Amino acid sequence: MSEQKKTNIVLFSGDYDKAMAAYIIANGAAAYDHEVTIFHTFWGLNALRKDEDIKVKKNFMEKMFGKMMPRGVNKMGLSKMQFAGFGPKMIKDVMKKHNVMPLPVLIEMAQEQDVNLVACTMTMDLLGLQKEELLDEIEYAGVAAYLGEAEDGNVNLFI
Amino acid sequence: MSEQKKTNIVLFSGDYDKAMAAYIIANGAAAYDHEVTIFHTFWGLNALRKDEDIKVKKNFMEKMFGKMMPRGVNKMGLSKMQFAGFGPKMIKDVMKKHNVMPLPVLIEMAQEQDVNLVACTMTMDLLGLQKEELLDEIEYAGVAAYLGEAEDGNVNLFI
Amino acid sequence: MSEQKKTNIVLFSGDYDKAMAAYIIANGAAAYDHEVTIFHTFWGLNALRKDEDIKVKKNFMEKMFGKMMPRGVNKMGLSKMQFAGFGPKMIKDVMKKHNVMPLPVLIEMAQEQDVNLVACTMTMDLLGLQKEELLDEIEYAGVAAYLGEAEDGNVNLFI
Repeated sequence: MSEQKKTNIVLFSGDYDKAMAAYIIANGAAAYDHEVTIFHTFWGLNALRKDEDIKVKKNFMEKMFGKMMPRGVNKMGLSKMQFAGFGPKMIKDVMKKHNVMPLPVLIEMAQEQDVNLVACTMTMDLLGLQKEELLDEIEYAGVAAYLGEAEDGNVNLFI
Repeated sequence: MSEQKKTNIVLFSGDYDKAMAAYIIANGAAAYDHEVTIFHTFWGLNALRKDEDIKVKKNFMEKMFGKMMPRGVNKMGLSKMQFAGFGPKMIKDVMKKHNVMPLPVLIEMAQEQDVNLVACTMTMDLLGLQKEELLDEIEYAGVAAYLGEAEDGNVNLFI
Repeated sequence: MSEQKKTNIVLFSGDYDKAMAAYIIANGAAAYDHEVTIFHTFWGLNALRKDEDIKVKKNFMEKMFGKMMPRGVNKMGLSKMQFAGFGPKMIKDVMKKHNVMPLPVLIEMAQEQDVNLVACTMTMDLLGLQKEELLDEIEYAGVAAYLGEAEDGNVNLFI
């Protein structure tokens, strides 16, 4: 049991393409029987946001962050070739054509494979994100919990 | 033999400076007798593109991606201080002055030191890149092969 | 003694939020009794710059880089939501409200916890940064020293 390999990914980026890379690696590692954790921090939290507009009490600053950040993965942009918003559409079109799973499906698949999806509580606080706004059945933790996993990790990545 | 240390780098970024960092670390690790692999995925594939315009059959979308992405490392931009295209020229000038090897030389050196240069086949498909357009003597593989290497890696980085 | 765990972070990015993530992980790892090193390279060197304008002899190119790069962490921008310069101010305001330590305090704390702050000498040369311009009591080294640490690292990250 203690011999199970571990993959720990910090997903810091809020870019669609980088989140895809994180989830493709995570799903691959889970298929290889690794214990896999994706620790979502800063803009990476947006990958865990629900699509719909959840009503929660926020102060002015939190409302602003909430409005400015993408609500869910389908609103995320690309790290390159954003092209005034056309880039993500183009990538999604070619993904469909090549039968590459889009990000929402990759996230579902990760949940089915028991990948631990963790939201960083400190940055949730900072950006004013509340549990109601994030996907169900995820975990909440801080940097200490991340390090507890990572120090025994075989593959540690910051994306 | 099984004691040989391993360095595995995922090069996701298509920025000149980040690719330089990847290749400097890779060459250093190879000089330290590590078994070194650079797994080029997404925009990082552009580091493996040949300079010249290779004629291959592409559909409309693939042609567009092909035109918009830099053809070879000399066309790549910087992650910071791009300055409407002047940044890369400035960096290359100071590199020359300080006898720092430019990226094409770093890549040649990596090949001479037997660094495994791998192109991610899934993202090649996505971006419509074909083998004829990439450097000779590289390898082609998917995320499973990457994970097979990375799970025994001493140094795993995502760049 | 040889059992002490090791965390090695390459800080390549010059973004305030990414540097924060690096220093939060570093301080956490130090609190967990890891031996921690942050290797500052390329734009990450700006996190080590002193606030004040230090008079050193520079050539034209070095002066230009010096002027264009942020002088110290308080001038650094964000990787996302820069908003014409308002983003960093917004983040700093919410950090204050939530009692999250700002970057200069995180760096001081790292120094107090004996985190090894290393400046990459090759990129200092490239960008024309001189020791007088960087924080006191840091170390200077190249990629070989980084790899010497990283190959025994438990947590290796490229940020």
